[in-house]
Amino acid sequence: MFAILHDDDGRLAWSEAPEPVLGPGQLLLRVAATAVNRADLLQRRGQYPPPPGASSILGLEAAGEVLAVGEGVTGWAPGARCMALLSGGGYAERAVVDAGHALPIPENLEDWEAAAIVEVFATAFLNLVELGRLQAGERVLIHGGSGGVGCAAIQLAVSLGAEVWTTARQSKLEAVRALGAAQAFDFTAPDLEASLRAAGRVNVVLDVLGAKALALNLDLLEADGRLLFVGLQGGRRAELDLLPLLLRRLTLRGCTLRALPAERKTALLARFAREVLPRLASGELRPVVHARYPLPDAERAHACMQASEHVGKLVLEVPR
Amino acid sequence: MFAILHDDDGRLAWSEAPEPVLGPGQLLLRVAATAVNRADLLQRRGQYPPPPGASSILGLEAAGEVLAVGEGVTGWAPGARCMALLSGGGYAERAVVDAGHALPIPENLEDWEAAAIVEVFATAFLNLVELGRLQAGERVLIHGGSGGVGCAAIQLAVSLGAEVWTTARQSKLEAVRALGAAQAFDFTAPDLEASLRAAGRVNVVLDVLGAKALALNLDLLEADGRLLFVGLQGGRRAELDLLPLLLRRLTLRGCTLRALPAERKTALLARFAREVLPRLASGELRPVVHARYPLPDAERAHACMQASEHVGKLVLEVPR
Repeated sequence: MFAILHDDDGRLAWSEAPEPVLGPGQLLLRVAATAVNRADLLQRRGQYPPPPGASSILGLEAAGEVLAVGEGVTGWAPGARCMALLSGGGYAERAVVDAGHALPIPENLEDWEAAAIVEVFATAFLNLVELGRLQAGERVLIHGGSGGVGCAAIQLAVSLGAEVWTTARQSKLEAVRALGAAQAFDFTAPDLEASLRAAGRVNVVLDVLGAKALALNLDLLEADGRLLFVGLQGGRRAELDLLPLLLRRLTLRGCTLRALPAERKTALLARFAREVLPRLASGELRPVVHARYPLPDAERAHACMQASEHVGKLVLEVPR
Repeated sequence: MFAILHDDDGRLAWSEAPEPVLGPGQLLLRVAATAVNRADLLQRRGQYPPPPGASSILGLEAAGEVLAVGEGVTGWAPGARCMALLSGGGYAERAVVDAGHALPIPENLEDWEAAAIVEVFATAFLNLVELGRLQAGERVLIHGGSGGVGCAAIQLAVSLGAEVWTTARQSKLEAVRALGAAQAFDFTAPDLEASLRAAGRVNVVLDVLGAKALALNLDLLEADGRLLFVGLQGGRRAELDLLPLLLRRLTLRGCTLRALPAERKTALLARFAREVLPRLASGELRPVVHARYPLPDAERAHACMQASEHVGKLVLEVPR
């Protein structure tokens, strides 16, 4: 088969690659589409090595058709449409996936749309709902609302009955408001901190900035507030003042989907299938796709993400 | 009535004080005994002002007899033996308490023993069980195992089926082992950090040190580990590395009982009554009392706590 491979210098090339080997409990997938995640940009430069046992090919999610079903798998048959979380290997014509990490594609969605769903909606669900226990009537601040996770998290939080505030670049404020954000703050404005502090407090912060925004995020939290990290784009080390944690009973947690053990991913996706999938099938929640690229042009899609020009996901389609 | 009052310089004196006023939903208590909490030492120096509406008299817990029952209170009658969490006012002959913050004294316990229970066992329960979700078979590190909260937390964790490691001064290691700690580490040893790192990892840390031990505590946590702060005796500000939070899905939380809103205290004590009180009544858990002082000698008890000479609680008994 063909796949995008990267060399030691991080260059991408559409090349011949070994077929993936179907194991027990797995599905073999014909990949129709995959999508870019920020982790891919790190991994190709050697900064985010795949976990042991995972494919060295990039690609953490895929949508397509089941070609074959491994030993012990129930509920799946060849020909079924499937979207899945991968530990790697999505930038390819074929991929294997744990059956517990695969979901049926709702009928209202095309493959290229389905490829833009699982990683970001499951990350938002894991952090906002499972770890953050976001409740109806609460207020959540979502940093980086125009990113893939941001666009999913805004919609998910709104559908849970929360009030959403978000930060994004000036040029993207309209887009994040259209997704349901009640307030959108210009991320690059010199008075961003002052504007947020003046606006009030929130119950939950979903953060991709890490160190850079730690003090601000803690200040913005109400009593019993939760600060959830899904990225550290603004650095990993910062001074932490522990006193507000005690006085206001704050919680700091963080979890990326990739760091979650396989059995926890399976449990998460089972809950996701019950609580989120129906809202994707009804159109209440929708994948936000900024652009579609042929998979062999993955380099262009990466450049777009690197430049942060996008709103939502960058989808890569496998040539047929 | 008489009570311990403190002047602006923090001097204590056994003095005439106004009677507390029984309000709706409250109990009027004849205080038989109260106990010293570290917060008292701060409050007398003006460093820990009582919350709005609370008595300015020291004393966060008391045990004694119900003298009168406020409007709307059910389940309590004059003459009942009662131990309670107070927002202040325990260092006195009489005190009022929210009925929801009061528990019956198990028959096997004297008043002076009951005075040593609620603050520390409820703090340990709140953090280990409610916030920390400590499970049977997990390992917990309890810093300051010889303090009041430490002695309660060691016993509670052991009774939940957890393996307990603790830190304490050399002279107190035997005492904390006798409470059930599987490993006790000399708190003042120059190689404490190295010893802990060599010993392995834990699922939960109950911490009173704050800044001073933050990096060590995070390093010691297993994946999905929880770090719970109940004190900041080693400072409030420290550098935090956020990467391990994401990679190992760590949680940082903290809560002192005093910061908990009244209705949350009521819910906590209701659960405490179901899950912990029976173990105090059976003798499986027991209050650890280092010494008993007449309440007018509160200064001596404070000096003992300040010098960290104690193991467990310092009880103050009201003269009759």
